[in-house]
Amino acid sequence: MVMSPVVNTYPLSSYTFGTKEPKMEKDTSVADRLARMKVNYMKEGMRTSVEAILLVQEHNHPHILLLQIGNTFCKLPGGRLKPGENEIEGLKRKLTSKLGANSPALVPDWQIGECVAIWWRPNFETIMYPYCPPHITKPKECKKLFLVHLSEKDYFAVPKNLKLLAVPLFELYDNVQRYGPVISTIPQQLSRFQFNMITT
Amino acid sequence: MVMSPVVNTYPLSSYTFGTKEPKMEKDTSVADRLARMKVNYMKEGMRTSVEAILLVQEHNHPHILLLQIGNTFCKLPGGRLKPGENEIEGLKRKLTSKLGANSPALVPDWQIGECVAIWWRPNFETIMYPYCPPHITKPKECKKLFLVHLSEKDYFAVPKNLKLLAVPLFELYDNVQRYGPVISTIPQQLSRFQFNMITT
Repeated sequence: MVMSPVVNTYPLSSYTFGTKEPKMEKDTSVADRLARMKVNYMKEGMRTSVEAILLVQEHNHPHILLLQIGNTFCKLPGGRLKPGENEIEGLKRKLTSKLGANSPALVPDWQIGECVAIWWRPNFETIMYPYCPPHITKPKECKKLFLVHLSEKDYFAVPKNLKLLAVPLFELYDNVQRYGPVISTIPQQLSRFQFNMITT
Repeated sequence: MVMSPVVNTYPLSSYTFGTKEPKMEKDTSVADRLARMKVNYMKEGMRTSVEAILLVQEHNHPHILLLQIGNTFCKLPGGRLKPGENEIEGLKRKLTSKLGANSPALVPDWQIGECVAIWWRPNFETIMYPYCPPHITKPKECKKLFLVHLSEKDYFAVPKNLKLLAVPLFELYDNVQRYGPVISTIPQQLSRFQFNMITT
């Protein structure tokens, strides 16, 4: 038998959640975001962004932690790397900025694991693909999703303007309308892992 | 930088295709297939099936080899394991049965690689999920998809009642209507790999 990689998954109740100062979105509209992307591309070239899949379990089913902005839009914690920044270090920096306590001693020891998906943005548009489309020689963004292995207990400080939700895989699956193409296919990308559901 | 696993991908033109005797489907309808599945489940328990993702390249874009039955239905080469059969050996047996020449010397040396997805069938129904749904303690089938690393040159013998198609990732992506949920999300599952496109 081929062994699947094992991911320990702890109960949502074993984590503690607090709040911290708001982290406002840099853009107030999709048009603003694409315009800023274009300006940055001219200065720095292709954007690389890194996002984290943080897993917990409830009722023996894996759940993913998503940040909700307003009442509808959900995103994975993460963000854009600085030019030349290491992916692992950059993702740790972004996770601490988004979810770490202001007191360094309380910030989780982020264990960045497997890269599970890579998405490409061919143009200054919202659409992304899980491959670099043919004839695209200068993609505008490369987004990488990493599994992050949480410890048995951790403290998350959630910016006051955001909500942190634990969303079950069965809610994400086949739900592109609500979660978009990147988040709604995470269940397929995680299917090769074996979840070791820890219940205490 | 985190290195993606590299997959060598050779041009479609470096492979040779012949034909062999037809391999008829065991069932002539979905109802027949589900009924036979039920009978086998009573005898043998949960079915495990294994399927192969065989990659080639054309125009520097990855293509997957699919078997087409009739004018519409496409499937990955593979099939059901015998009770207790090893997954790797079983997939090699199925690949040889579906695509290997009758002369053993011409059969490809199947190099079974990474498991890229696992799908579960909770009931004797067509619907499958990329996780075992909550409260399902006795799933009826577990289907595993493996990358198969092809050699630079190989000979495939295609059963006369089937067609072997090289379908580009961009055709599969977001095309659940034509290819179904399992095949249409292969591009997302392959996105974490780096394709080394070999052009000679």
